[in-house]
Amino acid sequence: MHNLSPLFEPAGIVVVGASASPGKLGAAMAESLAAYPSPVALVNSRNADGSMYSSVADAAAASPVPLDLAVLCVPAAATAQSLRECAASGVKAALVCAGGFAEAGEAGAENERQLVEALKDTGIRLLGPNTSGFFVPDRSLRASFVPGVAALTDGSVAVVAASGGVNHVLAFHLDKAGVGVSLGIGIGAGIDITAPEVLDYLITHEPTKAVALHLENVADGPALLDAVRRITARKPLVALVVGQNDVSEFAQSHTGALATSWRTTRAALKQAGAVLVDDEVQLVQAASALTGQRLKPSANPGVGLISGQAGPGLLIADALHSAGVGVPRLSPETQAAIGSLLPPLTFQANPVDTGRPGPGYDRIVSAVASDPSVDLLAVYGLTEPIADLPASIAASGITGSLPVLVGVDGPDSDVDRSRKSARDLGLPLLSGPTALARGLVALVEDARAQFQRHDSPAAFGAFPDIQGPWDEIRCKELLGALGIATPPRRRCADRPAAQQALTDLGAPVAVKLVDAGILHKTDIGGVHLGITSAESLHDALDSLQAAGATEFLVESMAPHGVDLIVGARRDPVFGPVIVLGLGGTAAEAFADVAIRTVPLSKRAAAAMAEDLQAKDLLKGFRNGPVLDPAELAGILVRLGGALLSDDGIAEIEINPLRLTSAGLIALDAVVITAEEKTI
Amino acid sequence: MHNLSPLFEPAGIVVVGASASPGKLGAAMAESLAAYPSPVALVNSRNADGSMYSSVADAAAASPVPLDLAVLCVPAAATAQSLRECAASGVKAALVCAGGFAEAGEAGAENERQLVEALKDTGIRLLGPNTSGFFVPDRSLRASFVPGVAALTDGSVAVVAASGGVNHVLAFHLDKAGVGVSLGIGIGAGIDITAPEVLDYLITHEPTKAVALHLENVADGPALLDAVRRITARKPLVALVVGQNDVSEFAQSHTGALATSWRTTRAALKQAGAVLVDDEVQLVQAASALTGQRLKPSANPGVGLISGQAGPGLLIADALHSAGVGVPRLSPETQAAIGSLLPPLTFQANPVDTGRPGPGYDRIVSAVASDPSVDLLAVYGLTEPIADLPASIAASGITGSLPVLVGVDGPDSDVDRSRKSARDLGLPLLSGPTALARGLVALVEDARAQFQRHDSPAAFGAFPDIQGPWDEIRCKELLGALGIATPPRRRCADRPAAQQALTDLGAPVAVKLVDAGILHKTDIGGVHLGITSAESLHDALDSLQAAGATEFLVESMAPHGVDLIVGARRDPVFGPVIVLGLGGTAAEAFADVAIRTVPLSKRAAAAMAEDLQAKDLLKGFRNGPVLDPAELAGILVRLGGALLSDDGIAEIEINPLRLTSAGLIALDAVVITAEEKTI
Repeated sequence: MHNLSPLFEPAGIVVVGASASPGKLGAAMAESLAAYPSPVALVNSRNADGSMYSSVADAAAASPVPLDLAVLCVPAAATAQSLRECAASGVKAALVCAGGFAEAGEAGAENERQLVEALKDTGIRLLGPNTSGFFVPDRSLRASFVPGVAALTDGSVAVVAASGGVNHVLAFHLDKAGVGVSLGIGIGAGIDITAPEVLDYLITHEPTKAVALHLENVADGPALLDAVRRITARKPLVALVVGQNDVSEFAQSHTGALATSWRTTRAALKQAGAVLVDDEVQLVQAASALTGQRLKPSANPGVGLISGQAGPGLLIADALHSAGVGVPRLSPETQAAIGSLLPPLTFQANPVDTGRPGPGYDRIVSAVASDPSVDLLAVYGLTEPIADLPASIAASGITGSLPVLVGVDGPDSDVDRSRKSARDLGLPLLSGPTALARGLVALVEDARAQFQRHDSPAAFGAFPDIQGPWDEIRCKELLGALGIATPPRRRCADRPAAQQALTDLGAPVAVKLVDAGILHKTDIGGVHLGITSAESLHDALDSLQAAGATEFLVESMAPHGVDLIVGARRDPVFGPVIVLGLGGTAAEAFADVAIRTVPLSKRAAAAMAEDLQAKDLLKGFRNGPVLDPAELAGILVRLGGALLSDDGIAEIEINPLRLTSAGLIALDAVVITAEEKTI
Repeated sequence: MHNLSPLFEPAGIVVVGASASPGKLGAAMAESLAAYPSPVALVNSRNADGSMYSSVADAAAASPVPLDLAVLCVPAAATAQSLRECAASGVKAALVCAGGFAEAGEAGAENERQLVEALKDTGIRLLGPNTSGFFVPDRSLRASFVPGVAALTDGSVAVVAASGGVNHVLAFHLDKAGVGVSLGIGIGAGIDITAPEVLDYLITHEPTKAVALHLENVADGPALLDAVRRITARKPLVALVVGQNDVSEFAQSHTGALATSWRTTRAALKQAGAVLVDDEVQLVQAASALTGQRLKPSANPGVGLISGQAGPGLLIADALHSAGVGVPRLSPETQAAIGSLLPPLTFQANPVDTGRPGPGYDRIVSAVASDPSVDLLAVYGLTEPIADLPASIAASGITGSLPVLVGVDGPDSDVDRSRKSARDLGLPLLSGPTALARGLVALVEDARAQFQRHDSPAAFGAFPDIQGPWDEIRCKELLGALGIATPPRRRCADRPAAQQALTDLGAPVAVKLVDAGILHKTDIGGVHLGITSAESLHDALDSLQAAGATEFLVESMAPHGVDLIVGARRDPVFGPVIVLGLGGTAAEAFADVAIRTVPLSKRAAAAMAEDLQAKDLLKGFRNGPVLDPAELAGILVRLGGALLSDDGIAEIEINPLRLTSAGLIALDAVVITAEEKTI
């Protein structure tokens, strides 16, 4: 039995602080829970007319079943004591909706301290505080004070939301979309039960076919990622992360928690197997598409698109292209098969423009579905009173052979009829060209995420036998030991050695100050580039000595190329991460970075460059050099490994890592120790 | 009487090629038009049983009213002749739905040629071919072969779509959203009636409160922009432009037209007063919000947001921030007023987090609405069976004093009840936090577009008295005459003059080859930068002479800064345009450009830099220089003016235009003549 079973599958329930006065929390909860088919005992210590029990102990004594779940509708200051009384009567899980805890000043903090202590002493599992509750419609279990939940019917998508309000919003929209909710929960303050635990519960929750996750902040990054990895191995998960912008003042008032980095959270979730969306509308569309079907793990699945009308077909194709989803040209054989079924005026290469479906429509569907480049099929059309699009698709005999999404538009009643037909045939249906496109993108993104997730972490060696102080030369020795190319160089103790180095290495060279204590050499005139003669080297050395240099680094100038920045850092929430971006101020202003948690798999590392908005710069842009993703992946894997194998290293940054026609070369690097970081 | 009145308000209608066989176009059209309350005559020349007229002439003779509109359901090859017969019987407008014209090979082209000739001879106005028709629900006029149109009720948004299919999709979604359609039209091939004419018709079409425009390509840019300017002076217009990606092969098969530049079309529409959206879902949300209300023209209106639940409030606030819409902090007075009405735990600075609406809710609404920084109000909440959010807002007495949007979520039936209540109270309502945010963004974008549109084109002088050949020095003289700063320079006919220039200007200088015939000097070694000594100048001159230079440009090196690229060009569809982007390869890879048509107003020009994704680079990024938008605007206005005042100039490009701490300096420029452009 899962330790959340008492919450989601209680034998009996007790409402503490139940009330008969409309508008009170205790009344709303009692009403919401009245439909539960097992005993629900109402407790109110000041109940005068005897219609309720006066204590939990009385209720438990009278109950034919264990009261596994307590819904506490008592003031914050009384919650801890009430919890202890519940525990004494065998209660195993509790829900606390009200506020008045950590977010509410000193008195609130004391309430929370007492509550946490009671949890520790009793072992009760607590949902809340500061949530509107949860619901499991197929068990008729609705522990929520939002009246509308009574209307929720059972469905296939589980909602795990940071906010109780968003839990309800998503549930209502999923219901409206026809896919429905299997379980919905708002974590609220989350002082005990957290999202990762609920995700684990959902792995074996049979009615749940897909999960919609809403996050505002992350307390324990690794726990969340582990849970996402575990559940996405079995069921698709779609995630909406709030906080792209600085709304932290408002957010903090809401949850009492500090905001987690939006970018890092999104990247880490995706790497762990989640499909990311930008808003709750997309969340519903994605979850609808992923309910009951997934693609096989794949780096680049192809969509076959059949549209009854060219204009909406163009909207769909445009949206798929924007999202980086391929609509491959159909094979000549497929096109010939379609050509024999359609008039020559329509476009048949993919998208396939059928006009109003006529005889032979099922054979068109089957031809497109059978094309070797098609991994999932989308069929779109305006509703027709005399034709049933889902039935036509089913008649083609392709259902079950590949994922299929149906899109229809028309009068409400027609769309509802199509939706019912689709549900009976097991075909997800979305209304609207963009909704259909979003659903397709979700299926493809899930396949891509699983493709990366299925690859094991790549091997990396122990930390090389090199130690600080981490001046530039030591840093580059470290990179060399990690198999990362650096320019030929000499450490020069005096001026004659530097002149000899110029002779040995050949012009042009760079000359730099060597000092582990100086992170930004350029700012103090510690870097001289493009030295071509003994005379200019002489001048440069003068200037370096004036800046305090006692040692010099002389190294060959690297060829021109495209500069990248690579950082291996320790994120406060997710632990070691790798960050990849383009070099230069302009790129910085675009805030165009790719992020991954480590350890990295080769696939995850190789896909990082593809995450960059300006990825074309790395593909021979304007006759520039072409990146070998495997070469970059190797560097990223080994840098991440260095952080994992030596706790003393806080950060390694290569800036720039130059992409040249001869490959990647690290031109400068910085290592920051854990000790320095904490100073 | 508008020349499209015979199409949209016909006294009588004749269906030519009407049929009684289900599935035929002539049957679908006859059925769709049967509900029209004025005479609809059916004509079929081969009608055997006498239930239809055998010719248009017979139908017209028997009709009590003029048959203004003909719906032609005859083969493409017979269409031109049928049109002539209609004209002979007084028909003034016609609809041709079928294909078989320009998109259909040689035979089709001949059909189109004949049709165009018939149009010219008869003066009939034609909608089509290649469209599913149009509808005006409040007149019960539905000339469409899509059966679902019978279900459309009359509403407030006019749909002008390139595609007949998209016209129907939008109409169904607007209907579902509760705002409904006042008129819907699919332009199709558009060989006669085009979108700009329909927009003009809608200016005085009383039921139309807002316009939804869908574009796939633009034949006549200036006509479209003029029409958008005219209608947006009276009614808001929301535009969806398809074709962000290269789907031109499919698009061309669909419309037979070449795709117009997506970026330029979007920018030009926005400048002309349109609100842009990214998909049809946003189109419906925006049109819903703009139906019956607009903000006053304003550069930066502030949103006041009241939310019953913090989690959805955070989603809304995050989406508004992402779209660049301000949610200003409320004044201390407003906060004090709210503080007296709400418990201290909620956030009250904006967004205002009310929790479930209680007593005093109307006073909170009124306090936020009265705040001086609030230009429009959004109120969001989960539905409550005992509370009616729209009614609570109305009770506050604020309606009419500023635009208000209501957002609700809950069970379908509750949302429908709220929607009805909102409609009765004249309050637009959207379901879902993101939908509400999109509606707010649309209202703000409309206010911003009108703010720019209300500003008259800025004055610019005649083309300066400078002529080609346009070598770099002449180009810079032109810029100087246009009031654009350039570095001090010397034209040097020989080496001694160049050495003298170095002395006069002072080191460092740039030395360049001067030749109007060479556009890319750098590529052939024609540019030497950072010359500091007579000796290095000597070397540079050697190399320039080796590259063929007979004259030299010596000029002072400009200080460091941020490089921009500014181009004044002639767009094939929209005419003269100004393009602004960041300099350098990295910026180019981001494809981050702002575009405006000319003549430019000062407001439109000054806002261009704000359109850039990397605009932060121009705002003192990393201690860099800060742009004066008015200085840049002056340059953009005068460059655009130069193109308007001299047809002989095809293009002027300044690359780079450097932003320095001393202002903007043009470091290099190219002028291309119309003559060169056509070579």
